[in-house]
Amino acid sequence: MKILLIGGEGTIGKAVAAAFRLRGMEVITAGRNSGDVQADISQPAMIERMYRQTGTVNAVICTAGTGYYGPFRTMTTDMMMPGIQGKLMGQINLVLIGQDYLAKGGSFTLTTGIAAEHPARNGTCVSMINGAVNSFVLGAAQEMTEERRINAVSPGLVENSFERYGSAFPGYNLVPMGKLVNAYILSVEGAVNGKILKVYS
Amino acid sequence: MKILLIGGEGTIGKAVAAAFRLRGMEVITAGRNSGDVQADISQPAMIERMYRQTGTVNAVICTAGTGYYGPFRTMTTDMMMPGIQGKLMGQINLVLIGQDYLAKGGSFTLTTGIAAEHPARNGTCVSMINGAVNSFVLGAAQEMTEERRINAVSPGLVENSFERYGSAFPGYNLVPMGKLVNAYILSVEGAVNGKILKVYS
Repeated sequence: MKILLIGGEGTIGKAVAAAFRLRGMEVITAGRNSGDVQADISQPAMIERMYRQTGTVNAVICTAGTGYYGPFRTMTTDMMMPGIQGKLMGQINLVLIGQDYLAKGGSFTLTTGIAAEHPARNGTCVSMINGAVNSFVLGAAQEMTEERRINAVSPGLVENSFERYGSAFPGYNLVPMGKLVNAYILSVEGAVNGKILKVYS
Repeated sequence: MKILLIGGEGTIGKAVAAAFRLRGMEVITAGRNSGDVQADISQPAMIERMYRQTGTVNAVICTAGTGYYGPFRTMTTDMMMPGIQGKLMGQINLVLIGQDYLAKGGSFTLTTGIAAEHPARNGTCVSMINGAVNSFVLGAAQEMTEERRINAVSPGLVENSFERYGSAFPGYNLVPMGKLVNAYILSVEGAVNGKILKVYS
Protein backbone atom coordinates (compact mmCIF):
# COMPACT_ATOMS: atom_id res chain seq x y z
CA MET A 1 0.00 0.00 0.00
CA LYS A 2 1.30 3.41 -1.04
CA ILE A 3 0.51 6.25 1.35
CA LEU A 4 0.99 9.94 0.61
CA LEU A 5 1.49 11.79 3.87
CA ILE A 6 1.36 15.58 3.69
CA GLY A 7 2.98 17.14 6.73
CA GLY A 8 5.20 14.13 7.27
CA GLU A 9 7.92 16.15 9.01
CA GLY A 10 5.60 17.61 11.68
CA THR A 11 5.16 16.32 15.22
CA ILE A 12 2.19 14.12 14.35
CA GLY A 13 3.36 13.39 10.80
CA LYS A 14 6.66 11.86 11.90
CA ALA A 15 4.93 9.47 14.27
CA VAL A 16 2.32 8.53 11.66
CA ALA A 17 5.00 7.91 9.02
CA ALA A 18 7.02 5.72 11.37
CA ALA A 19 3.96 3.69 12.34
CA PHE A 20 2.86 2.94 8.79
CA ARG A 21 6.42 2.06 7.74
CA LEU A 22 6.60 -0.38 10.64
CA ARG A 23 3.40 -1.88 9.26
CA GLY A 24 5.15 -2.48 5.93
CA MET A 25 3.59 0.35 3.96
CA GLU A 26 5.33 2.62 1.51
CA VAL A 27 5.06 6.17 2.86
CA ILE A 28 5.75 9.14 0.60
CA THR A 29 6.09 12.30 2.66
CA ALA A 30 5.24 15.75 1.38
CA GLY A 31 5.98 19.10 2.94
CA ARG A 32 6.37 22.72 2.02
CA ASN A 33 10.16 22.54 2.21
CA SER A 34 10.84 18.97 3.19
CA GLY A 35 9.81 15.40 2.47
CA ASP A 36 10.00 13.22 -0.60
CA VAL A 37 7.93 15.67 -2.64
CA GLN A 38 7.37 19.35 -2.00
CA ALA A 39 3.98 21.04 -1.96
CA ASP A 40 2.41 24.08 -0.39
CA ILE A 41 -1.19 22.89 -0.03
CA SER A 42 -2.49 26.45 0.04
CA GLN A 43 -1.85 26.49 -3.72
CA PRO A 44 -4.07 24.16 -5.77
CA ALA A 45 -1.53 24.12 -8.62
CA MET A 46 1.12 22.74 -6.27
CA ILE A 47 -1.26 20.05 -5.04
CA GLU A 48 -1.89 19.03 -8.64
CA ARG A 49 1.87 18.94 -9.31
CA MET A 50 2.47 16.88 -6.17
CA TYR A 51 -0.12 14.27 -7.20
CA ARG A 52 1.36 14.11 -10.70
CA GLN A 53 4.73 13.32 -9.11
CA THR A 54 3.39 10.60 -6.80
CA GLY A 55 0.95 9.05 -9.24
CA THR A 56 -1.92 6.96 -7.93
CA VAL A 57 -1.82 6.27 -4.19
CA ASN A 58 -3.89 4.09 -1.89
CA ALA A 59 -4.18 6.58 0.92
CA VAL A 60 -3.77 10.30 1.40
CA ILE A 61 -3.14 11.54 4.93
CA CYS A 62 -2.78 15.19 5.82
CA THR A 63 -1.25 16.22 9.12
CA ALA A 64 -0.18 19.63 7.85
CA GLY A 65 -1.62 23.04 8.48
CA THR A 66 -2.30 25.35 11.37
CA GLY A 67 -4.16 28.58 11.95
CA TYR A 68 -4.05 31.91 13.69
CA TYR A 69 -3.87 32.08 17.48
CA GLY A 70 -4.27 35.50 19.01
CA PRO A 71 -6.59 38.00 20.65
CA PHE A 72 -10.11 37.86 19.24
CA ARG A 73 -10.79 41.55 19.71
CA THR A 74 -8.22 42.57 17.12
CA MET A 75 -8.41 39.57 14.80
CA THR A 76 -8.96 40.36 11.11
CA THR A 77 -9.59 38.41 7.95
CA ASP A 78 -5.98 38.94 6.92
CA MET A 79 -4.73 37.18 10.03
CA MET A 80 -7.10 34.27 9.39
CA MET A 81 -6.25 33.91 5.71
CA PRO A 82 -3.12 31.69 5.88
CA GLY A 83 -5.03 29.12 7.94
CA ILE A 84 -8.06 29.33 5.67
CA GLN A 85 -5.94 28.83 2.57
CA GLY A 86 -3.84 26.13 4.24
CA LYS A 87 -5.49 23.90 6.80
CA LEU A 88 -9.03 24.62 5.54
CA MET A 89 -8.99 24.99 1.74
CA GLY A 90 -5.68 23.16 1.46
CA GLN A 91 -7.15 20.01 2.98
CA ILE A 92 -10.33 20.38 0.93
CA ASN A 93 -8.28 20.70 -2.25
CA LEU A 94 -6.23 17.65 -1.31
CA VAL A 95 -9.53 15.78 -1.58
CA LEU A 96 -11.15 17.55 -4.54
CA ILE A 97 -8.00 17.30 -6.67
CA GLY A 98 -6.95 13.99 -5.13
CA GLN A 99 -10.04 12.19 -6.41
CA ASP A 100 -8.13 11.73 -9.68
CA TYR A 101 -5.16 10.12 -7.94
CA LEU A 102 -6.68 7.95 -5.21
CA ALA A 103 -7.00 4.27 -6.08
CA LYS A 104 -10.29 2.38 -5.82
CA GLY A 105 -10.89 1.47 -2.18
CA GLY A 106 -8.45 4.17 -1.05
CA SER A 107 -8.94 6.68 1.72
CA PHE A 108 -8.43 10.31 2.60
CA THR A 109 -7.59 11.15 6.21
CA LEU A 110 -7.62 14.80 7.18
CA THR A 111 -6.65 16.35 10.51
CA THR A 112 -8.83 18.73 12.50
CA GLY A 113 -8.70 19.14 16.28
CA ILE A 114 -10.49 19.40 19.60
CA ALA A 115 -10.92 23.16 19.09
CA ALA A 116 -13.84 22.45 16.74
CA GLU A 117 -15.97 21.78 19.81
CA HIS A 118 -13.78 22.91 22.71
CA PRO A 119 -12.00 26.09 21.57
CA ALA A 120 -9.22 27.50 23.71
CA ARG A 121 -8.92 31.20 24.43
CA ASN A 122 -7.45 33.00 21.39
CA GLY A 123 -8.19 29.96 19.27
CA THR A 124 -11.42 30.89 17.48
CA CYS A 125 -9.80 30.91 14.05
CA VAL A 126 -8.51 27.37 14.49
CA SER A 127 -11.84 26.35 15.97
CA MET A 128 -13.60 27.60 12.83
CA ILE A 129 -11.14 25.81 10.53
CA ASN A 130 -11.51 22.51 12.37
CA GLY A 131 -15.30 22.75 12.36
CA ALA A 132 -15.26 23.48 8.64
CA VAL A 133 -13.12 20.46 7.80
CA ASN A 134 -15.14 18.17 10.07
CA SER A 135 -18.37 19.09 8.31
CA PHE A 136 -16.67 18.87 4.92
CA VAL A 137 -15.74 15.28 5.73
CA LEU A 138 -19.34 14.40 6.63
CA GLY A 139 -20.53 15.65 3.27
CA ALA A 140 -17.64 14.32 1.21
CA ALA A 141 -17.99 10.81 2.66
CA GLN A 142 -21.45 10.57 1.08
CA GLU A 143 -20.03 11.51 -2.30
CA MET A 144 -17.10 9.10 -2.47
CA THR A 145 -17.21 6.68 -5.39
CA GLU A 146 -15.30 3.46 -6.12
CA GLU A 147 -15.38 2.39 -2.47
CA ARG A 148 -13.19 5.27 -1.44
CA ARG A 149 -13.54 6.66 2.06
CA ILE A 150 -12.78 9.86 3.93
CA ASN A 151 -12.38 10.58 7.64
CA ALA A 152 -10.96 13.25 9.91
CA VAL A 153 -8.74 12.62 12.90
CA SER A 154 -9.40 15.23 15.58
CA PRO A 155 -6.55 15.34 18.11
CA GLY A 156 -6.56 16.98 21.50
CA LEU A 157 -3.30 18.31 22.94
CA VAL A 158 -0.70 15.74 21.93
CA GLU A 159 1.88 14.89 24.58
CA ASN A 160 4.79 15.70 22.26
CA SER A 161 3.37 19.21 21.70
CA PHE A 162 2.97 20.01 25.37
CA GLU A 163 6.15 22.03 25.76
CA ARG A 164 5.36 24.11 22.70
CA TYR A 165 1.61 24.57 23.10
CA GLY A 166 0.67 23.44 26.59
CA SER A 167 0.42 26.90 28.12
CA ALA A 168 -2.24 27.86 25.56
CA PHE A 169 -4.44 24.92 26.61
CA PRO A 170 -4.84 24.95 30.38
CA GLY A 171 -6.89 21.99 31.56
CA TYR A 172 -6.69 20.04 28.32
CA ASN A 173 -5.75 16.40 28.78
CA LEU A 174 -2.61 15.12 27.13
CA VAL A 175 -3.10 12.63 24.31
CA PRO A 176 -0.59 9.79 24.09
CA MET A 177 0.89 9.78 20.59
CA GLY A 178 0.27 6.03 20.28
CA LYS A 179 -3.47 6.54 20.70
CA LEU A 180 -3.48 9.32 18.14
CA VAL A 181 -1.53 7.26 15.61
CA ASN A 182 -4.08 4.48 16.04
CA ALA A 183 -6.80 6.79 14.75
CA TYR A 184 -4.88 7.28 11.50
CA ILE A 185 -4.40 3.50 11.23
CA LEU A 186 -8.13 3.00 11.81
CA SER A 187 -8.97 5.50 9.10
CA VAL A 188 -6.54 4.04 6.53
CA GLU A 189 -6.86 0.33 7.19
CA GLY A 190 -10.32 0.09 8.76
CA ALA A 191 -13.70 0.35 7.07
CA VAL A 192 -14.81 3.61 8.67
CA ASN A 193 -16.14 6.35 6.43
CA GLY A 194 -17.37 9.85 7.23
CA LYS A 195 -16.17 9.67 10.82
CA ILE A 196 -14.62 12.35 12.99
CA LEU A 197 -12.19 10.21 14.97
CA LYS A 198 -11.84 12.17 18.19
CA VAL A 199 -8.74 11.48 20.25
CA TYR A 200 -9.10 13.95 23.09
CA SER A 201 -7.30 12.16 25.94
CA MET B 1 -34.05 47.74 21.26
CA LYS B 2 -32.45 48.37 17.89
CA ILE B 3 -31.85 45.27 15.78
CA LEU B 4 -29.75 45.15 12.63
CA LEU B 5 -30.99 42.29 10.45
CA ILE B 6 -28.79 41.37 7.51
CA GLY B 7 -30.73 39.35 4.96
CA GLY B 8 -34.01 40.90 6.01
CA GLU B 9 -35.63 40.36 2.62
CA GLY B 10 -34.97 36.61 2.49
CA THR B 11 -37.43 33.85 3.38
CA ILE B 12 -36.24 33.58 6.98
CA GLY B 13 -35.29 37.24 7.30
CA LYS B 14 -38.79 38.49 6.48
CA ALA B 15 -40.36 36.31 9.16
CA VAL B 16 -37.72 37.30 11.72
CA ALA B 17 -38.18 41.01 10.96
CA ALA B 18 -41.96 40.75 11.30
CA ALA B 19 -41.71 38.89 14.60
CA PHE B 20 -39.36 41.39 16.25
CA ARG B 21 -41.43 44.33 15.00
CA LEU B 22 -44.51 42.73 16.55
CA ARG B 23 -42.53 42.56 19.77
CA GLY B 24 -41.98 46.30 19.61
CA MET B 25 -38.40 46.34 18.46
CA GLU B 26 -36.85 48.63 15.90
CA VAL B 27 -35.58 46.48 13.04
CA ILE B 28 -33.13 47.88 10.49
CA THR B 29 -32.87 45.55 7.53
CA ALA B 30 -29.77 45.23 5.38
CA GLY B 31 -29.36 43.46 2.07
CA ARG B 32 -27.17 43.45 -0.97
CA ASN B 33 -29.71 45.33 -3.06
CA SER B 34 -32.59 45.84 -0.67
CA GLY B 35 -33.44 46.85 2.87
CA ASP B 36 -32.92 50.00 4.89
CA VAL B 37 -29.17 49.91 4.34
CA GLN B 38 -27.22 48.13 1.63
CA ALA B 39 -24.27 45.88 2.22
CA ASP B 40 -22.59 42.97 0.51
CA ILE B 41 -21.21 41.09 3.51
CA SER B 42 -18.54 39.42 1.37
CA GLN B 43 -16.74 42.76 1.41
CA PRO B 44 -15.41 43.88 4.81
CA ALA B 45 -15.35 47.52 3.70
CA MET B 46 -19.08 47.39 3.02
CA ILE B 47 -19.74 45.86 6.42
CA GLU B 48 -17.82 48.70 8.01
CA ARG B 49 -19.79 51.23 5.98
CA MET B 50 -23.10 49.58 6.95
CA TYR B 51 -22.27 49.74 10.66
CA ARG B 52 -21.25 53.37 10.33
CA GLN B 53 -24.67 54.08 8.83
CA THR B 54 -26.62 52.24 11.53
CA GLY B 55 -24.50 53.32 14.47
CA THR B 56 -24.58 51.30 17.67
CA VAL B 57 -27.17 48.52 17.76
CA ASN B 58 -28.38 46.16 20.45
CA ALA B 59 -28.51 43.07 18.29
CA VAL B 60 -27.07 41.92 15.00
CA ILE B 61 -28.85 39.07 13.23
CA CYS B 62 -27.66 37.58 9.97
CA THR B 63 -29.99 35.44 7.89
CA ALA B 64 -28.10 36.12 4.65
CA GLY B 65 -25.76 33.96 2.67
CA THR B 66 -25.80 30.68 0.87
CA GLY B 67 -23.28 28.37 -0.72
CA TYR B 68 -22.60 26.14 -3.69
CA TYR B 69 -24.81 23.14 -4.35
CA GLY B 70 -23.65 20.79 -7.06
CA PRO B 71 -21.83 17.59 -7.92
CA PHE B 72 -18.91 16.91 -5.60
CA ARG B 73 -16.82 15.18 -8.25
CA THR B 74 -16.36 18.35 -10.27
CA MET B 75 -16.50 20.93 -7.47
CA THR B 76 -13.59 23.40 -7.38
CA THR B 77 -12.39 26.13 -5.06
CA ASP B 78 -13.75 28.73 -7.47
CA MET B 79 -17.27 27.35 -7.12
CA MET B 80 -16.96 27.38 -3.34
CA MET B 81 -15.56 30.89 -3.11
CA PRO B 82 -18.76 32.99 -3.16
CA GLY B 83 -20.12 31.00 -0.21
CA ILE B 84 -16.81 31.18 1.63
CA GLN B 85 -16.60 34.92 1.16
CA GLY B 86 -20.30 35.42 1.94
CA LYS B 87 -21.93 33.05 4.40
CA LEU B 88 -18.62 32.02 6.01
CA MET B 89 -16.25 35.00 6.13
CA GLY B 90 -19.11 37.47 5.73
CA GLN B 91 -20.75 36.30 8.94
CA ILE B 92 -17.39 36.19 10.72
CA ASN B 93 -16.66 39.74 9.63
CA LEU B 94 -20.08 40.87 10.81
CA VAL B 95 -18.87 39.85 14.25
CA LEU B 96 -15.22 40.92 14.10
CA ILE B 97 -16.08 44.35 12.72
CA GLY B 98 -19.38 44.56 14.61
CA GLN B 99 -17.67 44.43 18.00
CA ASP B 100 -17.21 48.19 17.64
CA TYR B 101 -20.90 48.78 17.01
CA LEU B 102 -22.68 46.35 19.33
CA ALA B 103 -23.92 47.85 22.59
CA LYS B 104 -23.01 46.41 25.97
CA GLY B 105 -25.23 43.41 26.65
CA GLY B 106 -25.98 43.05 22.95
CA SER B 107 -25.96 39.90 20.88
CA PHE B 108 -24.86 38.49 17.56
CA THR B 109 -27.03 35.80 15.98
CA LEU B 110 -25.63 34.03 12.93
CA THR B 111 -27.35 31.45 10.75
CA THR B 112 -25.88 28.07 9.86
CA GLY B 113 -27.94 24.97 9.04
CA ILE B 114 -28.62 21.29 9.48
CA ALA B 115 -26.07 20.47 6.74
CA ALA B 116 -23.28 21.02 9.28
CA GLU B 117 -24.06 17.60 10.71
CA HIS B 118 -26.51 16.10 8.19
CA PRO B 119 -25.29 17.12 4.73
CA ALA B 120 -27.50 16.49 1.74
CA ARG B 121 -26.16 15.09 -1.52
CA ASN B 122 -24.37 17.84 -3.46
CA GLY B 123 -24.27 20.00 -0.35
CA THR B 124 -20.74 19.48 0.97
CA CYS B 125 -19.75 23.10 0.41
CA VAL B 126 -22.68 24.35 2.47
CA SER B 127 -22.00 21.66 5.07
CA MET B 128 -18.44 22.95 5.41
CA ILE B 129 -19.57 26.56 5.70
CA ASN B 130 -22.15 25.76 8.38
CA GLY B 131 -19.67 23.71 10.38
CA ALA B 132 -17.16 26.54 10.19
CA VAL B 133 -19.59 29.15 11.48
CA ASN B 134 -20.87 26.84 14.24
CA SER B 135 -17.35 26.32 15.57
CA PHE B 136 -16.56 30.01 15.16
CA VAL B 137 -19.50 30.81 17.42
CA LEU B 138 -18.25 28.41 20.11
CA GLY B 139 -14.91 30.17 20.19
CA ALA B 140 -16.22 33.71 19.82
CA ALA B 141 -18.68 33.28 22.68
CA GLN B 142 -15.76 32.79 25.05
CA GLU B 143 -14.18 36.03 23.86
CA MET B 144 -17.18 38.34 24.13
CA THR B 145 -16.69 41.29 26.48
CA GLU B 146 -19.16 43.74 28.05
CA GLU B 147 -21.80 41.03 28.55
CA ARG B 148 -22.22 40.57 24.84
CA ARG B 149 -23.30 37.21 23.52
CA ILE B 150 -23.17 35.24 20.29
CA ASN B 151 -25.18 32.28 19.05
CA ALA B 152 -25.96 30.48 15.82
CA VAL B 153 -29.40 29.40 14.70
CA SER B 154 -29.16 26.20 12.67
CA PRO B 155 -32.33 25.62 10.64
CA GLY B 156 -33.43 22.45 8.95
CA LEU B 157 -35.59 22.65 5.83
CA VAL B 158 -37.99 25.50 6.49
CA GLU B 159 -41.57 24.95 5.37
CA ASN B 160 -41.58 28.14 3.30
CA SER B 161 -38.52 26.92 1.39
CA PHE B 162 -39.97 23.54 0.53
CA GLU B 163 -41.09 24.36 -2.97
CA ARG B 164 -37.73 25.87 -3.85
CA TYR B 165 -35.39 23.45 -2.08
CA GLY B 166 -37.44 20.42 -1.03
CA SER B 167 -36.34 18.15 -3.86
CA ALA B 168 -32.71 18.56 -2.81
CA PHE B 169 -33.50 17.34 0.73
CA PRO B 170 -35.42 14.07 0.51
CA GLY B 171 -36.39 12.82 3.94
CA TYR B 172 -35.68 16.06 5.78
CA ASN B 173 -38.45 17.16 8.11
CA LEU B 174 -40.12 20.48 7.51
CA VAL B 175 -39.51 23.14 10.12
CA PRO B 176 -42.45 25.40 10.99
CA MET B 177 -41.35 29.01 10.53
CA GLY B 178 -42.73 29.93 13.94
CA LYS B 179 -40.40 27.48 15.65
CA LEU B 180 -37.45 28.80 13.71
CA VAL B 181 -38.28 32.42 14.53
CA ASN B 182 -38.42 31.47 18.21
CA ALA B 183 -34.76 30.48 18.07
CA TYR B 184 -33.83 33.98 16.93
CA ILE B 185 -35.96 35.45 19.73
CA LEU B 186 -34.24 33.16 22.23
CA SER B 187 -30.83 34.24 21.01
CA VAL B 188 -31.62 37.96 21.07
CA GLU B 189 -33.77 38.25 24.18
CA GLY B 190 -32.65 35.24 26.21
CA ALA B 191 -29.44 34.74 28.13
CA VAL B 192 -27.95 32.01 25.95
CA ASN B 193 -24.36 32.38 24.79
CA GLY B 194 -22.23 30.16 22.58
CA LYS B 195 -25.13 27.95 21.62
CA ILE B 196 -25.94 26.32 18.32
CA LEU B 197 -29.74 26.56 18.39
CA LYS B 198 -30.77 23.61 16.25
CA VAL B 199 -34.26 23.76 14.77
CA TYR B 200 -34.37 20.63 12.67
CA SER B 201 -38.10 19.75 12.76
